[in-house]
Amino acid sequence: MSATKSEFIWKRKHLVGLDELTAEEIIHILDTAESFREVSTRSIKKVPALRGKVVGLLFFEDSTRTRMSFELAASRLSADTVLFSAKGSSVAKGETTLDTVRNIEAMGVDIFVIRHSQAGAPHMLARKLKASVVNAGDGSHEHPTQALLDIFTIRQRLGGVAGRKVAIVGDIAHSRVARSNILGLRKLGAEVVAVGPPTLVPSAITAMGCDISHSLDDVLGEVDVVNMLRIQFERFGSNLFPSVREYSRLYGMNVERLARCRKDVLIMHPGPINRGVELTSEVADGPNSCILQQVTNGLAVRMAVLYLVSQGTE
Amino acid sequence: MSATKSEFIWKRKHLVGLDELTAEEIIHILDTAESFREVSTRSIKKVPALRGKVVGLLFFEDSTRTRMSFELAASRLSADTVLFSAKGSSVAKGETTLDTVRNIEAMGVDIFVIRHSQAGAPHMLARKLKASVVNAGDGSHEHPTQALLDIFTIRQRLGGVAGRKVAIVGDIAHSRVARSNILGLRKLGAEVVAVGPPTLVPSAITAMGCDISHSLDDVLGEVDVVNMLRIQFERFGSNLFPSVREYSRLYGMNVERLARCRKDVLIMHPGPINRGVELTSEVADGPNSCILQQVTNGLAVRMAVLYLVSQGTE
Amino acid sequence: MSATKSEFIWKRKHLVGLDELTAEEIIHILDTAESFREVSTRSIKKVPALRGKVVGLLFFEDSTRTRMSFELAASRLSADTVLFSAKGSSVAKGETTLDTVRNIEAMGVDIFVIRHSQAGAPHMLARKLKASVVNAGDGSHEHPTQALLDIFTIRQRLGGVAGRKVAIVGDIAHSRVARSNILGLRKLGAEVVAVGPPTLVPSAITAMGCDISHSLDDVLGEVDVVNMLRIQFERFGSNLFPSVREYSRLYGMNVERLARCRKDVLIMHPGPINRGVELTSEVADGPNSCILQQVTNGLAVRMAVLYLVSQGTE
Repeated sequence: MSATKSEFIWKRKHLVGLDELTAEEIIHILDTAESFREVSTRSIKKVPALRGKVVGLLFFEDSTRTRMSFELAASRLSADTVLFSAKGSSVAKGETTLDTVRNIEAMGVDIFVIRHSQAGAPHMLARKLKASVVNAGDGSHEHPTQALLDIFTIRQRLGGVAGRKVAIVGDIAHSRVARSNILGLRKLGAEVVAVGPPTLVPSAITAMGCDISHSLDDVLGEVDVVNMLRIQFERFGSNLFPSVREYSRLYGMNVERLARCRKDVLIMHPGPINRGVELTSEVADGPNSCILQQVTNGLAVRMAVLYLVSQGTE
Repeated sequence: MSATKSEFIWKRKHLVGLDELTAEEIIHILDTAESFREVSTRSIKKVPALRGKVVGLLFFEDSTRTRMSFELAASRLSADTVLFSAKGSSVAKGETTLDTVRNIEAMGVDIFVIRHSQAGAPHMLARKLKASVVNAGDGSHEHPTQALLDIFTIRQRLGGVAGRKVAIVGDIAHSRVARSNILGLRKLGAEVVAVGPPTLVPSAITAMGCDISHSLDDVLGEVDVVNMLRIQFERFGSNLFPSVREYSRLYGMNVERLARCRKDVLIMHPGPINRGVELTSEVADGPNSCILQQVTNGLAVRMAVLYLVSQGTE
Repeated sequence: MSATKSEFIWKRKHLVGLDELTAEEIIHILDTAESFREVSTRSIKKVPALRGKVVGLLFFEDSTRTRMSFELAASRLSADTVLFSAKGSSVAKGETTLDTVRNIEAMGVDIFVIRHSQAGAPHMLARKLKASVVNAGDGSHEHPTQALLDIFTIRQRLGGVAGRKVAIVGDIAHSRVARSNILGLRKLGAEVVAVGPPTLVPSAITAMGCDISHSLDDVLGEVDVVNMLRIQFERFGSNLFPSVREYSRLYGMNVERLARCRKDVLIMHPGPINRGVELTSEVADGPNSCILQQVTNGLAVRMAVLYLVSQGTE
């Protein structure tokens, strides 16, 4: 892998999705993140890599933790940050997204981190802007840095990704986290099985190269990783499954189910978790869980992404 | 101009309006902005001019882009910034504006950037505080840095201001941008014509030294600059003119009207633009438009203003 | 005192309340604040003490001025800051406070400054986290840095605390500021009298070691300090006393009452003040008032607290 790293030349100035990336590019991001992870363990957690650069955090849709993670990653690289949040801004004044972002770009922003409710918004902006664009989640489409930190954590804990089998459990149909994970994991040679009720796991998902199971119990014994997606009550209410209790009974991870998994199975969750719904507290806080490690790795991965796109030319 | 620059000694510790400034002072700000503009083109876009100083951004009224522009200008000068936004603050707790600001001043703020819905608020504060005060827009009164960046852009694109003829189009009566522009342009020897329907361009405006026209078509052929003001739907609704379509038909800039202008006419707009209302997309994105250049110049002008008031003593 | 200072070794990595501290520890914070106060008078108001450290400002409850004071204190120590505000965050998504904070901790935060509506929340978090915790106000429980800055100001203005007599006036029953002040002042050997109507000053308060008076006029002649608490209209309305006018007539500080105090009596208020309610403008802006000095000292005290907890190990 170090050979790969030394010979590889990163060229992209945007990171809009894992769909666009080659396996080699994904591995290069993970390797770069590995070297930035060390910075976070120092007493002075800063490197001057992006000093004098400006990172614009554009959150057309709220996301406290993704915003904080990118903001801290940018600070750690010594960049200046400026926050745009859709609330109370001129978006309400009828301006187009493109005009809003071009305006902010004209203030000297070098890299945009963009969260938007509309799928494809970062891709559109990447085509129109001179600045770099990093997708921090677009609608139900992609959330590439979340998938990269998930994959980074799998590689870190299991020693590799190729040949591993990952179950992604929950609302696959509406989840950008699921989509980006499936894309990235498949490119790196992992097997993926999407698990959930038929309303949340439509058969068309197999086109992405993953298997489907409507029974969590059926797959428990054969997977290396169980990635539990958040049930977004605030978005979908209970329209997509009979009840929370029913969901939890069929698809929630608990000690009984954990006992039927491989001994060193990895339990993941992108957060924020609903304790007692996607997983019980015993599982969330137990030794197989790497939920907080995912968050920590998120910093390193986002430092890597911000750094790499700042070096990109195309 | 370089002779003027080298001999001039800046004395003001506040910038509350263009009304107070001499032509010489305005030119000194523009010249200083010129030298800061170069910083924005460097790889490391930072100078240590205000290191260890604190800029307090006090937005009693929301303004995403003006806040971002001042925040980035302060960062670029290496100042620390702290943001106060009226929402959810102790303003709601019945405290006076003066008490709120004096409190924040006592925390060690050196320069206040103040946006306030009440005309004259920055002037009152400038008299009471030891810190510097920069007016970032007060009611319908003044928005001096917007006018300075407009004038900077005119000088940059046309090579000078004196003798040029500028049309300002729209709601002149309620616009602080218009007021500050008229004041600044007149002091530098430009001619100004205020254009709009009689409800928005009352005859009393001529007291500021500008001409009036209720027909945009009448003035198109004779002006060097057309500065289109934003129609603030959110403030005035349709009370002041029959309809948006009617406004656009009479006072909107489009390719037909542009064809009747001088070949190198400058089309300006303080943003955010309402595409299809004040101007069409062809005009906004065409070669005569300098809308994004205005935004970029705003950074340099605000760096200059923050730097100069930090040096001022009276 | 310098002997005390040089020999004392600070050990705490949290500051959750004055209840936990010894007199020696309180004095050590005040002495450390004294040395940081000098930084605020320099032209470049920055020291590198916390460079590369991250201070997380967690405001589960809004507080503009406490947030700004801690934010500026952190900047002045060269720390990076990241703000979490409960509005629009995943708190609304049903996540527990502990999960929210552990998540942010996993992003590499070194010190948390926490404001929470629930009494005891910072204490609970201090037990669970590896990062340091500073209480910025928890329910009606404690607000230690406010009391420390009050005590710092008393020591600065009166030359000492032991043996001085302090009246705290207002809603003692619901005030975390009052509680922390009583605890700290008593530990340093001051006498405290809690003043207010029986609804706001219940007799159980005497268990904290203070006296009680339901008449402000009775105590005026014998105290060195009058600390007027803010009447929190927004919280308690007029349920706890007949009317604002009645409250002001009985417990408001005015020139007549000031005339009956000792000549150099110190008038304090944690802000924001209700002019004409807790005190008149003549008193608030007069020579006995040290309200803005309290704010300025707040910076130095918070710098000291952030610095000390960063050095603590237990």
